[in-house]
Amino acid sequence: MSGYSVFPVTGLPELGKGDDLAAMILECVELEDGDIVVVAQKAISKIEGRIVRLDDIEPSEQAREIAGDEEDPRRIEAILREAKSIVRIRPPLVICETHDGFICASAGVDASNTTEPDTLILLPVDSDASAAVLRDTLNERSEREVGVIVTDSFGRPWRQGTIDVAIGAAGIVVLQDMRGQQDSVGHELRSTVIAVADEIASAAQLVAGKLDRIPVTIVRGLDLRGDGRAQEIPVPAERDLFR
Amino acid sequence: MSGYSVFPVTGLPELGKGDDLAAMILECVELEDGDIVVVAQKAISKIEGRIVRLDDIEPSEQAREIAGDEEDPRRIEAILREAKSIVRIRPPLVICETHDGFICASAGVDASNTTEPDTLILLPVDSDASAAVLRDTLNERSEREVGVIVTDSFGRPWRQGTIDVAIGAAGIVVLQDMRGQQDSVGHELRSTVIAVADEIASAAQLVAGKLDRIPVTIVRGLDLRGDGRAQEIPVPAERDLFR
Repeated sequence: MSGYSVFPVTGLPELGKGDDLAAMILECVELEDGDIVVVAQKAISKIEGRIVRLDDIEPSEQAREIAGDEEDPRRIEAILREAKSIVRIRPPLVICETHDGFICASAGVDASNTTEPDTLILLPVDSDASAAVLRDTLNERSEREVGVIVTDSFGRPWRQGTIDVAIGAAGIVVLQDMRGQQDSVGHELRSTVIAVADEIASAAQLVAGKLDRIPVTIVRGLDLRGDGRAQEIPVPAERDLFR
Repeated sequence: MSGYSVFPVTGLPELGKGDDLAAMILECVELEDGDIVVVAQKAISKIEGRIVRLDDIEPSEQAREIAGDEEDPRRIEAILREAKSIVRIRPPLVICETHDGFICASAGVDASNTTEPDTLILLPVDSDASAAVLRDTLNERSEREVGVIVTDSFGRPWRQGTIDVAIGAAGIVVLQDMRGQQDSVGHELRSTVIAVADEIASAAQLVAGKLDRIPVTIVRGLDLRGDGRAQEIPVPAERDLFR
C-alpha cells in the first residue's frame, strides 16, 4: 500500500429530518470500491430527528442540583436522560456512559451547530445501525462497496483537546487484531489491537472542520473492508480500570 | 482546503544509535513546504540509544512483587524507573505517568521490534526536543518548512485498541483552539480545542503499520504550521478527574 487520501464532500445542503443523505452524497462525489465514508454524528442525528427543544424539557431535582447557577438545568436533564450511568461529575461537567456504552462528556448531547436556537442534538439511538443503513443504500445505488463510519468529537482522560472517534461503523474493520503475528525479529506482538476506525475518524476530522459545515469526508486508499461494528469498542465495565 | 494525503517513507534502512535520520529521510522523499513528517517513537529511541539490556537490570522488591509469576521482574523494574508515578496496577499491567507527563501502559517501555533480543526500548527522554532537532535539520537541508511529530501507540480508558498519539512535536499546531469562534448559527463553540497533533499521529499510523518497519510517514496537504509542543497535551494533575 502506498498511501491514502482524505477529502471533504463539498456542496452538501443543510440537513434536516428525513433527508436522503445517501442521495445527497452521491450527487456530490463519485464513490470507489473501498472508500470509507465518514459522517459526523450531527448529520445523522439531524436526518433522524434526534433534536429536542429546551422548552419541552422539565428538569428533575437532580438536574437542578448538578446545574447549579452556571448551567441550564434543562440541558443537564437532557444529558441525564441520555445516560445509562454517570462516570464523573464536576459541575457543570458530566461524564456519562451512553445507553450504547460510550463514555463521553454530556452523554453526547450538544448545543452547537444546531440549525434552530434553543435546541439540543442527541446522539443517534444506534449509530452502528445508522451506519449500516447508509452503507447499504450507498452500495446499492453506487454499485460500489464502501464502508461507513459515524463519528463524534470526544475528550479523553489525561490528554487535552478532543479527537474524533467512531461511534458507528459498517462494512469496515473497527479493531484490527495484530496479536499473534510476529514482528521483524520474531517477538510476538502483544496487546496490539489497533482501533483503526477511531484513527480513521480522527484522520477525517482534520479536513471536516467544525465551522465549515462539512459533515461528510471520504477516506480513499485504505483497504479496510470488513464487518466491524463500533459496539466492539467499549471496554466491558468489569474489565475497565477507569470507571 | 480540498484534502490531504498520507504516505509512507519507503526504503529506510534499519536504524541504529547515532544514525542521521534526517539524511536518511531526505534520501527517500522530496519534502514540500507544510509537510508533516511523522516518526514512530522507536525510530527516535533507537538513534538516541534508548535501549537497555534485560541482563543489566537488577529488579527491586517492588518490581518482583508486581511481576508475580507471569512477568519478567527486570521488565517491571525498567518500567518503574521510567515512571514519575503509577496511575493503576493490575498485575502485570502497570499504567504510569512518564517523567515528561504522559500517562500510558508500561511507561512506554516496549520489547517488540527491537533489533536485539532481550532488550527493551525506552521512550526518548524529551520527545519535543527530539522532534525539534529533526525538524531543524530537515528544514535546513531541504530548504523547506516542515513539521515533525513523534508518535507512540497508546491504549486508552473505556475504548479497546490502541491509537497513535503525539508525544513530541515541532513546527506544527498541537492543540487547535476553536473556542470563541462562532459556528454557523452563532452559538459560541464550547470546549472545542482539537488535539490535531494526536489526530495526525493516528492518520499516519494507518499506513505505517506495525510489521512493515516503516517508521516514517508523510502527511501532505494540511496547513498546520505552528509552534506547538506535545508537552501542552497532558492534563495538569490537579485538573485531572481520572488519576
